[in-house]
Amino acid sequence: MISILSGGTGTPKLLQGMVQVLKPEDITVIVNTVENDYFSGVYVAPDVDTVIYTLAEIINEDTWYGVKDDSFITHDRLKEIGCPETLRIGDRDRALKIQKTILMENKTLSQAIDIQRKELGIETLIIPMSDQGSHINIITDAGEMEFHEFLVENQGKPEVFDINYQKVDPAPGVIDSIENSDMVVIGPSNPITSIGPIISTYGVRKALKNAYVVAVSPIVGNQPVSGPAAKFMEANGHEVSSLGVAGIYQDFLDKFIIDLEDENYQEEIEKLISDVMLTETIMRNMTDKINLARCILGENV
Amino acid sequence: MISILSGGTGTPKLLQGMVQVLKPEDITVIVNTVENDYFSGVYVAPDVDTVIYTLAEIINEDTWYGVKDDSFITHDRLKEIGCPETLRIGDRDRALKIQKTILMENKTLSQAIDIQRKELGIETLIIPMSDQGSHINIITDAGEMEFHEFLVENQGKPEVFDINYQKVDPAPGVIDSIENSDMVVIGPSNPITSIGPIISTYGVRKALKNAYVVAVSPIVGNQPVSGPAAKFMEANGHEVSSLGVAGIYQDFLDKFIIDLEDENYQEEIEKLISDVMLTETIMRNMTDKINLARCILGENV
Repeated sequence: MISILSGGTGTPKLLQGMVQVLKPEDITVIVNTVENDYFSGVYVAPDVDTVIYTLAEIINEDTWYGVKDDSFITHDRLKEIGCPETLRIGDRDRALKIQKTILMENKTLSQAIDIQRKELGIETLIIPMSDQGSHINIITDAGEMEFHEFLVENQGKPEVFDINYQKVDPAPGVIDSIENSDMVVIGPSNPITSIGPIISTYGVRKALKNAYVVAVSPIVGNQPVSGPAAKFMEANGHEVSSLGVAGIYQDFLDKFIIDLEDENYQEEIEKLISDVMLTETIMRNMTDKINLARCILGENV
Repeated sequence: MISILSGGTGTPKLLQGMVQVLKPEDITVIVNTVENDYFSGVYVAPDVDTVIYTLAEIINEDTWYGVKDDSFITHDRLKEIGCPETLRIGDRDRALKIQKTILMENKTLSQAIDIQRKELGIETLIIPMSDQGSHINIITDAGEMEFHEFLVENQGKPEVFDINYQKVDPAPGVIDSIENSDMVVIGPSNPITSIGPIISTYGVRKALKNAYVVAVSPIVGNQPVSGPAAKFMEANGHEVSSLGVAGIYQDFLDKFIIDLEDENYQEEIEKLISDVMLTETIMRNMTDKINLARCILGENV
């Protein structure tokens, strides 16, 4: 039994490998929810949806957002009639979002996700970090803004001075899942805006300290593998490197997996985390994903 | 300047003729809203949408509901994932409904409709009968039910004992439009569930009594031209015929247009309404629609 903390970009790729190596039902994925919000009248849980679509094998692997081979008829029509959408929601993707919105009229997010993953034949348990809403507040040279405002409307361009978000209560099962896992895996997701919110959820940091925790660095060299992690790490005073990530996770991390390219950081990281392993962390294909999953689980690749 | 009271089936056909005969901006359409409700997370105003789509020349003329040549990707996907929609909403149709839903977060229905009709290039003013929500309650041999429950889920099959709906306040402009029109036209729509709610709106019946009102019978012989009018008329104690309709409208109607087939009713109807005209009321094509519009307006066809 393992738990995996996930954001919406790097970790879903790892999940594709994990479900090949472990029984899907022996995995629980705890997903960041801090960016969830209503757009175009539907509830959008970006990271949760990416995890659901990944495990349902319908994810668009070009963008790691939305459903593969989707059409955009409603989205395009909304633009034509003067009501453009902030997010590009496909027609099949919209159906899942409508379903979640309807379910949430009288259910929690946790319950809605559980209904959806069963409907899609997913055996892996998917738990949102919280059933409470919360937002990231980004302080930039262009003013204060929310996450999608920064990333989509401003294309991640403003200089970032600070990031903060409310602490919320964990969803049912989050703490239990961490406490009862043989291993907790922190996937290669953004440590500030994806993993950070999960860790800040009440009780999670304490539970992680008592668990065996393995993390994969989302930074290779001085560049995140994907997404806007660099600006956020710098704004929070962390070096943009696997060493910087080690600094963020050091108080609860038991084992840190860094890329072969980062051998030069190994010695410094070992001062923070006793067990450091070097391997190929870039996942270009299914073999890479399975190999990284095996490496995390301590199996010989 | 004329006002036309409209439901969602017969009257929109007449509107297609009217905008050929009169300047579109000289027409105000006052539309039934009693069946409006939220479905699949979007606000659905069935009769309003049919009027908008008709005047925007995008109506599906096979069903008089939704957008022509639409696709149903989201609708079909919702069914696949165990969340079937009560109403069959197309992808392009859904965009308009999403827009209205978003607009109504901080605007009235009247304001939302006015923005949409301008966006779609419609010069004819479209006013909902009310900005307040209201529902039809249908008492049947299968229990009490709402309109869509009766018509869609139960396919209009139960025996109807009675129909009622709340009286609501008219939307801004409804009374003014009736008072300032040279003629008020009651289109060939269901007199109980489409025109009835408009007439029952506070102040409308009084305004109609002071106006010059022309109605077109929605019944030819003993059958409604379209829709479920027959059961509702019977349940309310009216004969299913143009004579029955005349009885419903008699206290404010100045001129009644019935079908050539209904000559046998003419004498009886003339006891209720002084001015009765016989013409071809079935609108099979644009020529029929224009001819009926001209006949209503008193022009020689």
